[in-house]
Amino acid sequence: MTHPVLIVGSMAFDDLELPSENRKDVVGGSATYASIACSLFAKSQLVAVVGDDFPADTLTQLADRGADVTGIERAKGKTFRWAGRYAADLASRETLDTQLNVFADFQPKLPEGYRDARYVMLGNIHPALQLDVLKQANSPTLVVADTMNFWIEGERDKLGEVLAKLDLLVINDEELRQLAGTYNIKRAARKVRDLGPKRLIVKRGEHGAMLFDQDESVFYAPAFPLLNEVDPTGAGDSFAGALMGKLAAEGEVNSHTLRHALLYGAAVASFCVEGVGTDALAALTENQLEERLVELKRMVYIGD
Amino acid sequence: MTHPVLIVGSMAFDDLELPSENRKDVVGGSATYASIACSLFAKSQLVAVVGDDFPADTLTQLADRGADVTGIERAKGKTFRWAGRYAADLASRETLDTQLNVFADFQPKLPEGYRDARYVMLGNIHPALQLDVLKQANSPTLVVADTMNFWIEGERDKLGEVLAKLDLLVINDEELRQLAGTYNIKRAARKVRDLGPKRLIVKRGEHGAMLFDQDESVFYAPAFPLLNEVDPTGAGDSFAGALMGKLAAEGEVNSHTLRHALLYGAAVASFCVEGVGTDALAALTENQLEERLVELKRMVYIGD
Repeated sequence: MTHPVLIVGSMAFDDLELPSENRKDVVGGSATYASIACSLFAKSQLVAVVGDDFPADTLTQLADRGADVTGIERAKGKTFRWAGRYAADLASRETLDTQLNVFADFQPKLPEGYRDARYVMLGNIHPALQLDVLKQANSPTLVVADTMNFWIEGERDKLGEVLAKLDLLVINDEELRQLAGTYNIKRAARKVRDLGPKRLIVKRGEHGAMLFDQDESVFYAPAFPLLNEVDPTGAGDSFAGALMGKLAAEGEVNSHTLRHALLYGAAVASFCVEGVGTDALAALTENQLEERLVELKRMVYIGD
Repeated sequence: MTHPVLIVGSMAFDDLELPSENRKDVVGGSATYASIACSLFAKSQLVAVVGDDFPADTLTQLADRGADVTGIERAKGKTFRWAGRYAADLASRETLDTQLNVFADFQPKLPEGYRDARYVMLGNIHPALQLDVLKQANSPTLVVADTMNFWIEGERDKLGEVLAKLDLLVINDEELRQLAGTYNIKRAARKVRDLGPKRLIVKRGEHGAMLFDQDESVFYAPAFPLLNEVDPTGAGDSFAGALMGKLAAEGEVNSHTLRHALLYGAAVASFCVEGVGTDALAALTENQLEERLVELKRMVYIGD
């Protein structure tokens, strides 16, 4: 039996200025993307907060995909909102506005049924909240977290406490360099693993993702080169959600299952980028996913 | 019998400002790096020009590695000189000075014994000179070229004539984007292949290299993550030289041999970066190379 993945993170409205179009009120947030991606492989248990303006339909749709949404608190006020503008090449983005709203007072509470979760994904929220979640979880098999520059700069101590408890840190390359205080990726990975995480996955956008494993080995999963990139929002969260879902479905975390999970993460993330918000991700079929996985494997196939 | 690789390119003195040290009068140039890298697999035939200040020892050392140096013209005057300063992270560099010297009047002449060359590497020189070389070659099996922003901007027509004659273009990602006028790598690769080259290899520095093959397939060779990067000068030329040497040694150019050659190129380039100038490249042993190749293969090994 596949265990569900406990996912803590944000649920949000995003206002997106994309090269192709502008879209307002796009449902997003790290927990949303991760849960949809995870649902391709395993059920999820969501912990998040939304305001009274958040569409009930979206929660129903997540539940239809196998997400337990009883851990999503509906608070009085407005849902977290992020507005951003992407560069023409989609390689960088600028935050235009952040309104924390109900997210400002978020106190994650695990429903009783969540406390035995084996697979725990701590999305990019305040490290103090990530710690609160871990205190409420009984004995997870795999604790994975994401973080960002904001916490690396401002909440170093709390973040250090989180790092000490992690089996796996998933982080992008710029944040890895910032956290380690060194540019060289291999040395930075070594430094950060010394802070706690047994394993480290470095997300490198269009350049793929690298796993720095506990046996010091390095695995490289390429990104799928897309002809039409539309919106990278949520690609990293989709990557992490798919990774967790695949690991939960495998029921075992080792170098072998991790390598496969990374490829699935890369494949799912590539679909995410092909549509605005969760559009393409939500429309993804199992056949399409398996086809892309074959293509990714071919991309690194060497032969004898 | 392995055919030699005809290599046309620059031979130079480089003044390097590196994060680790400053070094003047470092023997470099695209032909030098490519020839040393090629020598790990195959002999080379060099076409280049040096001034009367160029050390005879260097030519003897190249010859000792199996390079035919009779095509190197020794002209009156000074050797081509490049001075550059690398950023602390080695990810970018700034040209401080370029003195073409004898390179300004370079007219590549193929000695009689070079004209039947099967494997031709046109290093990054003026496209008109690349064309001159091709006119002197009888019927090469594989014509490969490199180019740079300078020619893409200023010599578009001549460069177009070169592209039309290429089996394989080796180019870095920024230059690919510039040549295609589009940021998306896959679309840019398609556009550039429409200009002539049957195949395209995109060098992406620390992110590895991608092969866009004639059957539309994509192969990805990772870069080896180094703990100590010293000097990236010549890494791209070493990559190309090793690639050509390996293909010549295989005696056949197909998707299979190309994939292997790319990995060898990546491995050899990684050694190049570990020393100043050609230091680490020249000291590389066959055992070290094979070890690194095993590590590169492990980096993309997925299993069943």
